[in-house]
Amino acid sequence: MERVKALIRDVPDFPREGILFKDITPVLGDPVAFELVVGGLHEALEGLDVTKVVGIESRGFIFGAAVARSLGAGFVPVRKPGKLPHRTRTVEYELEYGTDRLEIHEDAVSAGDRVVVVDDLLATGGTAEATGRLLAELGAEVERYAFVIELTFLGGRARLGEEKVLSLIQY
Amino acid sequence: MERVKALIRDVPDFPREGILFKDITPVLGDPVAFELVVGGLHEALEGLDVTKVVGIESRGFIFGAAVARSLGAGFVPVRKPGKLPHRTRTVEYELEYGTDRLEIHEDAVSAGDRVVVVDDLLATGGTAEATGRLLAELGAEVERYAFVIELTFLGGRARLGEEKVLSLIQY
Repeated sequence: MERVKALIRDVPDFPREGILFKDITPVLGDPVAFELVVGGLHEALEGLDVTKVVGIESRGFIFGAAVARSLGAGFVPVRKPGKLPHRTRTVEYELEYGTDRLEIHEDAVSAGDRVVVVDDLLATGGTAEATGRLLAELGAEVERYAFVIELTFLGGRARLGEEKVLSLIQY
Repeated sequence: MERVKALIRDVPDFPREGILFKDITPVLGDPVAFELVVGGLHEALEGLDVTKVVGIESRGFIFGAAVARSLGAGFVPVRKPGKLPHRTRTVEYELEYGTDRLEIHEDAVSAGDRVVVVDDLLATGGTAEATGRLLAELGAEVERYAFVIELTFLGGRARLGEEKVLSLIQY
């Protein structure tokens, strides 16, 4: 993963002052690094008999879709409110300032589905935890929360469950 | 593609009255159908020596990322304004009512790149054409515009260039 790590770009003060943003677009643009990430996630997840990969809008779509196809699983988008056209379930979750919401199609997963939630970055884990609540409501089992990058000092791993979290690169 | 076509769900009056929305989420959720789509796009694009696959936010990310990995190409996101953290180029384009904008990272493609633009659906072609303008500004060559679904009666194909457009399913 050294090649991948070398391509992650730090962008200060994005999306707002005081945040050091981890920009993964140079990783995506490099076919070797992109393959290392998707192949790395595949390798860590194969054997779990995953039926659905859930990607969180919208960078989670990029890694989630490639991993879903790689594992031979279906892909399920979790989106911001109002984007999914069919019947949805909604979850509200806390942000540093205020709250936000995420939606999933009611028929996207069901009891018996073995699911992996994929996103680019694990920070506090609020978004992933909210996604897990949506999936539990629909009866699906979350096998893993998988991330390209984990900011270990923010405690997301403990929040989601130590043994459920998988990340390729840690800061 | 019959299995894929059977899974595309018509949603009336979404996102607004009078629009019959083509919902591709059931296709994504079915591993066989998702594989048919990604494999179908791969087959149609291999041999073009593609260096970058450009996905348009955000359903284009899902198909584009899987196809990029499949072709061994890099993936480049084209996004709504304010989402990309590094230096960007912006293009403005006409909508039915008003205008919209898209952004790309300046360093995402360069002269010599052979690019495929991927999105889920070709309607009038305005978004894809705007993306093509961004890519041309940065010196990249657009080899193909590739879509899962094409609404042939809206004339997008003529707008983008007959020989440049590829779609798996036509209505």
